[in-house]
Amino acid sequence: MSMHFDNIALIGKYQSPDVAESVLEIARFLRSRGRNVWMEQGTASSIGGAGDYPIAAYEQIGAEADLAVVVGGDGTMLNTARRLAEHAVPLVGVNLGRLGFLTDISRSNALACLAEIIEGRFGEESRFMLDAEVLRGGVRVFSTRALNDVVVNKGDLGRMIEFDLAIDGEYVYTQRSDGMILSTPTGSTAYALSANGPILHPSVGGIALVPLCPHALTARPVTLPDSSRIEISLLLPHDARVHFDGQARFDLRAGDCVRVTRSPHALRLLHPVGYSYYAMLREKLHWSAAPRHN
Amino acid sequence: MSMHFDNIALIGKYQSPDVAESVLEIARFLRSRGRNVWMEQGTASSIGGAGDYPIAAYEQIGAEADLAVVVGGDGTMLNTARRLAEHAVPLVGVNLGRLGFLTDISRSNALACLAEIIEGRFGEESRFMLDAEVLRGGVRVFSTRALNDVVVNKGDLGRMIEFDLAIDGEYVYTQRSDGMILSTPTGSTAYALSANGPILHPSVGGIALVPLCPHALTARPVTLPDSSRIEISLLLPHDARVHFDGQARFDLRAGDCVRVTRSPHALRLLHPVGYSYYAMLREKLHWSAAPRHN
Amino acid sequence: MSMHFDNIALIGKYQSPDVAESVLEIARFLRSRGRNVWMEQGTASSIGGAGDYPIAAYEQIGAEADLAVVVGGDGTMLNTARRLAEHAVPLVGVNLGRLGFLTDISRSNALACLAEIIEGRFGEESRFMLDAEVLRGGVRVFSTRALNDVVVNKGDLGRMIEFDLAIDGEYVYTQRSDGMILSTPTGSTAYALSANGPILHPSVGGIALVPLCPHALTARPVTLPDSSRIEISLLLPHDARVHFDGQARFDLRAGDCVRVTRSPHALRLLHPVGYSYYAMLREKLHWSAAPRHN
Amino acid sequence: MSMHFDNIALIGKYQSPDVAESVLEIARFLRSRGRNVWMEQGTASSIGGAGDYPIAAYEQIGAEADLAVVVGGDGTMLNTARRLAEHAVPLVGVNLGRLGFLTDISRSNALACLAEIIEGRFGEESRFMLDAEVLRGGVRVFSTRALNDVVVNKGDLGRMIEFDLAIDGEYVYTQRSDGMILSTPTGSTAYALSANGPILHPSVGGIALVPLCPHALTARPVTLPDSSRIEISLLLPHDARVHFDGQARFDLRAGDCVRVTRSPHALRLLHPVGYSYYAMLREKLHWSAAPRHN
Repeated sequence: MSMHFDNIALIGKYQSPDVAESVLEIARFLRSRGRNVWMEQGTASSIGGAGDYPIAAYEQIGAEADLAVVVGGDGTMLNTARRLAEHAVPLVGVNLGRLGFLTDISRSNALACLAEIIEGRFGEESRFMLDAEVLRGGVRVFSTRALNDVVVNKGDLGRMIEFDLAIDGEYVYTQRSDGMILSTPTGSTAYALSANGPILHPSVGGIALVPLCPHALTARPVTLPDSSRIEISLLLPHDARVHFDGQARFDLRAGDCVRVTRSPHALRLLHPVGYSYYAMLREKLHWSAAPRHN
Repeated sequence: MSMHFDNIALIGKYQSPDVAESVLEIARFLRSRGRNVWMEQGTASSIGGAGDYPIAAYEQIGAEADLAVVVGGDGTMLNTARRLAEHAVPLVGVNLGRLGFLTDISRSNALACLAEIIEGRFGEESRFMLDAEVLRGGVRVFSTRALNDVVVNKGDLGRMIEFDLAIDGEYVYTQRSDGMILSTPTGSTAYALSANGPILHPSVGGIALVPLCPHALTARPVTLPDSSRIEISLLLPHDARVHFDGQARFDLRAGDCVRVTRSPHALRLLHPVGYSYYAMLREKLHWSAAPRHN
Repeated sequence: MSMHFDNIALIGKYQSPDVAESVLEIARFLRSRGRNVWMEQGTASSIGGAGDYPIAAYEQIGAEADLAVVVGGDGTMLNTARRLAEHAVPLVGVNLGRLGFLTDISRSNALACLAEIIEGRFGEESRFMLDAEVLRGGVRVFSTRALNDVVVNKGDLGRMIEFDLAIDGEYVYTQRSDGMILSTPTGSTAYALSANGPILHPSVGGIALVPLCPHALTARPVTLPDSSRIEISLLLPHDARVHFDGQARFDLRAGDCVRVTRSPHALRLLHPVGYSYYAMLREKLHWSAAPRHN
Repeated sequence: MSMHFDNIALIGKYQSPDVAESVLEIARFLRSRGRNVWMEQGTASSIGGAGDYPIAAYEQIGAEADLAVVVGGDGTMLNTARRLAEHAVPLVGVNLGRLGFLTDISRSNALACLAEIIEGRFGEESRFMLDAEVLRGGVRVFSTRALNDVVVNKGDLGRMIEFDLAIDGEYVYTQRSDGMILSTPTGSTAYALSANGPILHPSVGGIALVPLCPHALTARPVTLPDSSRIEISLLLPHDARVHFDGQARFDLRAGDCVRVTRSPHALRLLHPVGYSYYAMLREKLHWSAAPRHN
């Protein structure tokens, strides 16, 4: 992979023609700087007018691109990260609306920031992902990956579920609740935060377990080392689902075990020069931006 | 240092004659197993009847003992850990009342557990500590160490304080609140938990920042990597104090900066065979101990 | 209605043959004390052996019984209260397992307590209920009643919903969340408590609004006067459901409005002599039962 | 008392010369409208240039004024309300900075709003207050009144306190914590909100009990009927203080009992036409002000 990012793929928000103009402008700009620009297959078909550019499937992008520019919001970045997880291609996010936690380049700064990045001036960060699988009678019936969170949640009936939690093979507790969030540091500012979960800095090697409306008042969020093998086994006779980054889901049956571990794969996320995690948090969470007395 | 724990110091709860019987019984037992038993100086003077045993100051215990047995509660362990922090002597805790988070051997099991431990059958865990100092006009006016937490808190007047938070030299936010807890994983089940802080497993390399009654509703606990340099600078014109493990404190003035980093020293904590962190949490926090449906 | 409770209906847990023995023993006891004992229709058919007693539908119980004895848990009491809400018949609850918030007579004390009650020695409490209706295009498409809570919740897809809240016709805010609980004081110790809602003493005339995993960190539970007309209007394009006491539910469409007001009907709940709300809370919530220092 | 507000007192922020210009402009305006304008004694002496207006002590204002205009923030309103509590004089608040919860007229709208109010166009609201007393050995050693809250808090040493809670003479629980807030609906958006207390609408007849960093994870805020007599009795050997609206305080000794009841006196608070409690909450708490989809 070239540090000069010779081959750059553009990935737009899923089935969203409204990113067309931005994607094409970025494409022209990168080509004007001598880069080979590829359009992700679905993006090309939904935006139209991308005929000038070679079309590439995710598989090819993962294998051959030096950089992927994601144009959309955090949801688009989550989707891209999950699809490209097994490859080492770095991602950078351009947000057309309000800045996201992961897509931190605004539309108006996009060309200037990308100009810097392809010249080698950027910050790089590694964000670990979770590997998740569902075991039924000891057999794996589903598996996927998540960058934000794996959420075991009550199903259609809307009733509390009950499950056993085991960590590294050791029984920890039985919980009745609406469900449980298993969150990476990346996900700790997403759904887990709404459920009173703790914010984890991206370089903390921890996985947060955040209960959803637990029946017991003594239940509390716990942060485990990211080396942990976490297993949630659904007890009788509940209906439940497991959600992955809010993008994939799987219906659970009583007895099913959801097993989660840190993935060997990680997202390589590029930031423009001057990016600050704390400044981003302050902005997104509306923390007080300046001393009041001075 | 011998793995056979030839030289063992006994340290009892501060100024508490009621631990005398237990301390002396443990002393006799360890001597009967051929160990050299020393009495910590203050312990010897408060319990009486320790005349049979050599007396040792903390300094000597740190330098020469192979093991220190702490008899009391978690407060006694905190105090001992802070005093012996610069030395590598491992500690084990015997609790005369309800088991603590750190003192996990009950009085009734003490001799059996210690017999196992001095034969080399035990678990060992490292618990990191915090180094804290107060800077006034750039000059260090106070420094100490904490195993649980450093707490910046409002002072006598009972009014909210206001301070700037900086991490690794970068301004993060200005907060008005009753104060802020900076907690290690060890401290995450102590005061920080009462303030809705996140539980951190001891092997997570994180420091939790937990605001106390923050004025802004968007304030949330944040867990930072333990490599962080955390600085809290008090703004005008508040009165505030900083507390260390609830055992030492220092009055702050406007402009003072409390700087906290991970200490290079760590507590070596021994556990009896069969100790489980999760079982301890379940017991202490009254989590559901068994599946309800079976 | 006679204060001597001449006509007493027995209502057992829904489709639960295991309450048969208790129901029949209570029936025999009350008949031995000269009361007319009726079996609720469904109860009679599920327990068997109730042939000795006249069978009564809920409608008849509501119109003619002087007292209804509910044998089961809080769920059975909720169901009974909702069915008999328009009638003034008082209810008393016998719990076969661990005491509930509403069913506060244990199986072992049941005969003694009922003996006292039918002699006129008891406490009486009024618990208000909520009237709820769903409006679609301004037309009422569903209505029911709840003793604990009305819960607007995300539906099958598991995605956050978005809705407008209006109180007494005034727009209050737009919220993105997993949903919203509208709870009576009776419901404040049920699901709302799991969602960090406030406990409301039964004689507080308030309705608690408790958001479920709100996107905005500034969302907080609010207690409104029970004279309020509360309207939640679902925005596009979400899927959502509304649940009533966890026992009835209705699928919502975008644009639907859930309107909730205090019902003119209330539950008359009888307690045995010596009942204490605070003692019940202390027991159920595991609050410290006795001074530690004395 | 005249509904035309013939006699109007002006009360400025305590010892704050910076409110002088606003106070004097309001005074001139009200005089130009034919009202008798009095300056509160302390206000007159701190602002200077008030020589044109008669000076009045709080006692006289309470007895004879038809209206008091408070110029400052919520703290000034709290102080005024506590001083005038035994009188029925209505208050209206002009805020020189960001609007407060109680001082809801901005400086720029002050003259226009006051013009309306003295013509009889306004909303009036009653806000109940708390009577608090400290009993030592059964004898009253201190008493005062609070509009927001009575806060029993740990003292100088910064250690948890322990106390018994009794309601209407009945023992409820023993709590170890940093303290307890007893809050009116008015105070529910002040300090209590920082401690995760519930927001109570001003017309809810409830008093919220909000624990501060309770040791037990099962402690929860509870809202009691405002007819309750609430007693907090400090156990040995702690040091503690009780604070009233953050403006008065009293040092407690072990054995002291803080007794709180609803005061027979209430604050009469006037609002300009168009005032909305919900709009104020939305503004102050940064709730979403407008539907996102439309």
